[in-house]
Amino acid sequence: MNLKEYVREIADFPKPGIGFKDVFGIFNEPEALKSCIDQLAEIVPPTDYDVIIGPEARGFLVGMPVAYLKGKGFVPVRKPGKLPGETVSVEYELEYGTDRLEMQKDSIKAGDRVLILDDLLATGGTTKAITEMVENAGASVVACCFVMELDFLPGRQVLAGYRVESLIHYDAE
Amino acid sequence: MNLKEYVREIADFPKPGIGFKDVFGIFNEPEALKSCIDQLAEIVPPTDYDVIIGPEARGFLVGMPVAYLKGKGFVPVRKPGKLPGETVSVEYELEYGTDRLEMQKDSIKAGDRVLILDDLLATGGTTKAITEMVENAGASVVACCFVMELDFLPGRQVLAGYRVESLIHYDAE
Repeated sequence: MNLKEYVREIADFPKPGIGFKDVFGIFNEPEALKSCIDQLAEIVPPTDYDVIIGPEARGFLVGMPVAYLKGKGFVPVRKPGKLPGETVSVEYELEYGTDRLEMQKDSIKAGDRVLILDDLLATGGTTKAITEMVENAGASVVACCFVMELDFLPGRQVLAGYRVESLIHYDAE
Repeated sequence: MNLKEYVREIADFPKPGIGFKDVFGIFNEPEALKSCIDQLAEIVPPTDYDVIIGPEARGFLVGMPVAYLKGKGFVPVRKPGKLPGETVSVEYELEYGTDRLEMQKDSIKAGDRVLILDDLLATGGTTKAITEMVENAGASVVACCFVMELDFLPGRQVLAGYRVESLIHYDAE
């Protein structure tokens, strides 16, 4: 199945000049949703990783079904103040200024092999920040897998040294 | 499996006096995650509904795996400004003031039978707002299913007239 046919392209979102790739075009359709999750779940053999991390909100969409399918636990990464209990955090750079991501303390253990799943690889900032949190916990990142990748942005270079896989590529805005 | 054993109770979150029920205690553990999704997926026969709606962010966690399992499409409901393209919206009341939820236009069709899934039934405000959006689209709500329900809050009364099912009940803070 060619998933790209299901992605809706929406002009001028979130700001003028940006052509937004809407992954919900895939998830709205039962066959496309199933194919997308099945393809993501087959990239890395489940014997190669222990736990799945997905950042809010769209990383939740792909992380949970794959965790269910492959019998893994799911660990969320969220914006500051959203996760209860003790958290660890990491700061990362935005186009202007910085932002912060949080993970619940002890949700990842030393030695854990982590699969990071998200819907979109663009600048790579969020994913790079997650790799830092994982490594700060003494765990390792096995791969970073995405539904869509914007090849004209530097995400893959930002994640140099990590295995990066995407189901769909866009080579131009 | 008694899922309640996996829910972490965290004192004074998000504000003093509130004992937060942390559903991620379930999703962190592979067996508990699987049991939770399987139980949610079995509440309503898949022949009885056409599409699943889940509100961001935690509704994404349960909506997508059940949609995958039962061969349904998934439609997101989000906070204002998060969804690209044309949207429909509904306003709902908070303790102080109002908030708004959005859904992509035409993501739900007239006649669709909708299953609403979320992690927690508390005051019922979000779910009630979703039922209004569904009905404004000429579709109908088959049931509203939750992982956890706070029986000491009026969620179930707010949703009077709808089928409401929850896997775990808390009868006191």
